[in-house]
Amino acid sequence: MYSFKNDYSEGAHERILEAMMDTNRIQTVGYGMDEYCASAREKIKSRIACEEADVHFFVGGTQCNTTVIASILRPYQAVIAAHTGHINVHETGAIESTGHKVVAMYSEDGKLTPELVKKAVLEHSSEHMVVPKLVYISDSTEIGTLYTLQELKDLYACCKELGLYLFMDGARLGSALCAKGNDIRIEDLPNYTDVFYIGGTKNGALFGEALVITREELKEDFRFYIKQRGALLAKGRLLGIQFEELFKDDLFFELAEHANEMSLKLRDAVIEAGYTFLAESYTNQQFVILPDAVIKKLEDNFLFEEQHRVDETHTCIRLCTSWATTLESVEAFREALVNA
Amino acid sequence: MYSFKNDYSEGAHERILEAMMDTNRIQTVGYGMDEYCASAREKIKSRIACEEADVHFFVGGTQCNTTVIASILRPYQAVIAAHTGHINVHETGAIESTGHKVVAMYSEDGKLTPELVKKAVLEHSSEHMVVPKLVYISDSTEIGTLYTLQELKDLYACCKELGLYLFMDGARLGSALCAKGNDIRIEDLPNYTDVFYIGGTKNGALFGEALVITREELKEDFRFYIKQRGALLAKGRLLGIQFEELFKDDLFFELAEHANEMSLKLRDAVIEAGYTFLAESYTNQQFVILPDAVIKKLEDNFLFEEQHRVDETHTCIRLCTSWATTLESVEAFREALVNA
Amino acid sequence: MYSFKNDYSEGAHERILEAMMDTNRIQTVGYGMDEYCASAREKIKSRIACEEADVHFFVGGTQCNTTVIASILRPYQAVIAAHTGHINVHETGAIESTGHKVVAMYSEDGKLTPELVKKAVLEHSSEHMVVPKLVYISDSTEIGTLYTLQELKDLYACCKELGLYLFMDGARLGSALCAKGNDIRIEDLPNYTDVFYIGGTKNGALFGEALVITREELKEDFRFYIKQRGALLAKGRLLGIQFEELFKDDLFFELAEHANEMSLKLRDAVIEAGYTFLAESYTNQQFVILPDAVIKKLEDNFLFEEQHRVDETHTCIRLCTSWATTLESVEAFREALVNA
Amino acid sequence: MYSFKNDYSEGAHERILEAMMDTNRIQTVGYGMDEYCASAREKIKSRIACEEADVHFFVGGTQCNTTVIASILRPYQAVIAAHTGHINVHETGAIESTGHKVVAMYSEDGKLTPELVKKAVLEHSSEHMVVPKLVYISDSTEIGTLYTLQELKDLYACCKELGLYLFMDGARLGSALCAKGNDIRIEDLPNYTDVFYIGGTKNGALFGEALVITREELKEDFRFYIKQRGALLAKGRLLGIQFEELFKDDLFFELAEHANEMSLKLRDAVIEAGYTFLAESYTNQQFVILPDAVIKKLEDNFLFEEQHRVDETHTCIRLCTSWATTLESVEAFREALVNA
Repeated sequence: MYSFKNDYSEGAHERILEAMMDTNRIQTVGYGMDEYCASAREKIKSRIACEEADVHFFVGGTQCNTTVIASILRPYQAVIAAHTGHINVHETGAIESTGHKVVAMYSEDGKLTPELVKKAVLEHSSEHMVVPKLVYISDSTEIGTLYTLQELKDLYACCKELGLYLFMDGARLGSALCAKGNDIRIEDLPNYTDVFYIGGTKNGALFGEALVITREELKEDFRFYIKQRGALLAKGRLLGIQFEELFKDDLFFELAEHANEMSLKLRDAVIEAGYTFLAESYTNQQFVILPDAVIKKLEDNFLFEEQHRVDETHTCIRLCTSWATTLESVEAFREALVNA
Repeated sequence: MYSFKNDYSEGAHERILEAMMDTNRIQTVGYGMDEYCASAREKIKSRIACEEADVHFFVGGTQCNTTVIASILRPYQAVIAAHTGHINVHETGAIESTGHKVVAMYSEDGKLTPELVKKAVLEHSSEHMVVPKLVYISDSTEIGTLYTLQELKDLYACCKELGLYLFMDGARLGSALCAKGNDIRIEDLPNYTDVFYIGGTKNGALFGEALVITREELKEDFRFYIKQRGALLAKGRLLGIQFEELFKDDLFFELAEHANEMSLKLRDAVIEAGYTFLAESYTNQQFVILPDAVIKKLEDNFLFEEQHRVDETHTCIRLCTSWATTLESVEAFREALVNA
Repeated sequence: MYSFKNDYSEGAHERILEAMMDTNRIQTVGYGMDEYCASAREKIKSRIACEEADVHFFVGGTQCNTTVIASILRPYQAVIAAHTGHINVHETGAIESTGHKVVAMYSEDGKLTPELVKKAVLEHSSEHMVVPKLVYISDSTEIGTLYTLQELKDLYACCKELGLYLFMDGARLGSALCAKGNDIRIEDLPNYTDVFYIGGTKNGALFGEALVITREELKEDFRFYIKQRGALLAKGRLLGIQFEELFKDDLFFELAEHANEMSLKLRDAVIEAGYTFLAESYTNQQFVILPDAVIKKLEDNFLFEEQHRVDETHTCIRLCTSWATTLESVEAFREALVNA
Repeated sequence: MYSFKNDYSEGAHERILEAMMDTNRIQTVGYGMDEYCASAREKIKSRIACEEADVHFFVGGTQCNTTVIASILRPYQAVIAAHTGHINVHETGAIESTGHKVVAMYSEDGKLTPELVKKAVLEHSSEHMVVPKLVYISDSTEIGTLYTLQELKDLYACCKELGLYLFMDGARLGSALCAKGNDIRIEDLPNYTDVFYIGGTKNGALFGEALVITREELKEDFRFYIKQRGALLAKGRLLGIQFEELFKDDLFFELAEHANEMSLKLRDAVIEAGYTFLAESYTNQQFVILPDAVIKKLEDNFLFEEQHRVDETHTCIRLCTSWATTLESVEAFREALVNA
């Protein structure tokens, strides 16, 4: 039984575990003030070409999203997201638990556009309504699509025009940046977002998201928010050690490329077998529409997520690859699908 | 330079890292629904002799405290704590951020008594006031003291009489249970608390607290609270693997015993050198009152926390030992102190 | 200049002011524990034929909505509302400020149906999502439409089947109950909702909403929630005096009938002048689609709210009548409209 | 039976009711944007000699306290109060419900001093703790004491030095300003606080508190906070009408003087009868320590609040006078006390 259920089915890339072993008995201070975190921060700032950025490490994405959003918004302000956005559907109301409305805009491809953002702002025009102040996007999105550099630039320009901040959830940023057709470079992000994060959990780390804050007024007292949200890891070094390794020799990008490569092979298999997709994806997630009978056969040897029912006889499934996905498993899936 | 600054200065006991290595490429489902977590849960339930308990794993203590307390209290209800309690002083208002008041009772030794709990309840007698519904204690306490079994029994009886729940923060439970003079066994806790946790972060794990809920009505939908608080670790297996190891062959207790042993040696050194303590402690924290001149000398070779100024020429420092503290460092400290 | 802008443009029906004058120097206890409140409660319970109900008085609707919803939901639970629902759009995020998501369902006519409620529940199926636990409806709705008794019965049955509570916002309940075509009686509400309120602010009182809780488990400690929300009026008697008067000789219903009568005259005028409506309304609000040129002329002598732009040359306006609307003003409007 | 239980036992001064009658059928816009509110704002700004202030009206004190505090503090910040402060004990955790800790400092006389404020700030020195950012005081205090002008000046200077805002709860400001020995004028308040309010509920109005914000950065978007807290009264005119009347011919001060005069007569009676006070008060509240036997006799003809037990045979009671207290009742009390 092989699992394409998600991109966190295994532990971590072995270089990361080895780095942990090697440093295990060295004493450091806690809470991310240690030398490994300092070094990881430097490596990241250098790689994104933004020395004035603040970098903070989080254990997980929901924690990171909640902390960032709660730190930026005043009580009556809201965050705009695509209706498919992780914060809108998959965080058990974490954002609302901090007191803020998520203004969800319907988006077929999971992306926000200047038009959608403007619409959201126009619809909130009185003091009896919340005030949108922040725009949340994910790249790659929750359904595997990508922003182009031009789209990102336009969205950022729109945000600036409207006095909004732009926050990018990068839980699957590695896959996005390494995807076929992508033209955004990691060093573009400080210029076209106000705050973003680099996801480690889904790209080879045991856990960890590296948050990058570039806008000056968003940096103030940020560690207080981290602590209040229970997100200040005692042995913060563990995050530093992992990101140091991921940003040494571009391991982060290598791992994402592998995941994408495996994903494209799955994509080819789907095309070969004559099936279609929910949306075109060159990232590590493929959303495939399959006859229920085919799904039933595949389930003999593979695990994957059923997303939603498409019609009476078809269902959309998600196939997820990662840094750890093996070529054998992908080939086995191809064979099973073609013969199903 | 050797650090007695805290009990999370190193990584993890090597058996834990090895278990991570050994299982690294095995695929599991996420969010703590994997076989390692299942096995760790069984080991813990068996060790505490309470098969009907629910066990949930958290990455850290603040997260765990906040999630538990927010899950139990209705909006107008409050939690009673000693004024020294971690939730009252050291969590950047995390409890209040979930909408609840911490009713802090002054306590010289960091412990709550039935008298203090009754006083807190009596002082909140009208609908213009919050209603205390939960009692929060730590064992060992934030200043190194211990509850006796009789004290715990009396406190629990008082809580039941007053319709209150009792929650024990066990961030340093290992040290408490293994301390000289302690007469509480881990299997007593399901009988004399409603919910408690077993701290791994400060006792040999990379991170991790195992929360044990024994009271039926507190179990309902608990995982929703975990997710909302951003505390549902994607690779939940990491917590399972660690607690499996800690509760295999009682490694958890062995590590705590080592920490206590080192701490008692520091204690002996303090007595030998003729200094005094803030409170009598047989756990892994010693709160020592030293002349500032002595502290200055010790700082040449040792790191430790200054707690608070005692008088014009004395300061209270904290010495913290752990599973990783070396005998050499303790002896070096003794020598330095005696000769200071 | 005459205003059809809203139903709270004037003070209160004179009988209410006189009752205040008459009782002014009589001493009472505070916070709604006085004899006027007691008497008003009895009158309401008798009128709705539900002696076991709990009745609480609020100054305003947003306060009442927020208090009720915050008292019912656990932190991870959500409330379902029509997308037009007051709590979803016009309370500056008050519900979210208490930590809860409003699950908004698109509804052309501003009403919820069993189908919409089931859809909302089905779409929230995992522990990574909020759990809908409460259904919020308004009668009359925010766009002037009405529930029929059968619709309400079906909705309530659906809620019970799904384990949901049903809460009716009755800010404009008077107008609804007295509307042409309405077949719900006020004594039906305890049977087909779990909690509802009777709006005074928009029906002849200076201010005031009478909340009726019929479900036993929703009654517990409710006054603590009122106080915490800042909604416990010191001179609570003012609410009692007003509702006593409104429910003496059915003044409440008389006033609503007057408002509806005036509204229907406006409706007739619109039809006579050949214009159309956003939705068919027999309540005290008419949503009329008018050419911008006509609106411009009407604005010379009348105040009203522009709701939203319909197309390049038309806008939807709201005309609102009340207990105080004069026949002369309605006739003047008719004339102005027909001649515009 | 005459009640000295509180200062909101009656309706409102008749001039206020008459103003309501006179304006009753005049149409206005809602939510405090009407001409009565505008006029009341002007009268208040003129009386306090601060044209650049923003004035907002609230129905009640808890609402006002919560809205102000929630608008000023960032999530990790806290408000300092005397342990007797209304927000600390008598608002059912309203402040905490908005996510903020109340840092309570023990104060014998119910007042804060620069020393206490500095202590509170010093005790919160790490990122694991909340950050005090606001100081809350009441004048007169909850136990009837008064600030002197010098004390207020010193406290304000201390706040400015430490980067804190100063907020004065003026629920009983009228009584304070008119008290024997007081040397603060209402026009001093814009200079020595950042935000304060003028209490109407306890000084002759049906209800109402006039909030004055003088600090520029605290003014921004304040109406959004009011609405979110459910505190934007639909018929906002009712607040305008009342405060217009209170600040026409200094009625506000006249009423407070009457209440104080009655209170001093009660005070004299206590002295004459040979009893003592909890604290020396020249305001409209007297906290009197009486033998239980005496209290029992007084209860035959008078209502008052028992505050707390002093010793085995004595209890502290509160006697509260108001604009409506009659000379006869005060004399009757004197007689009863002297003869008890």
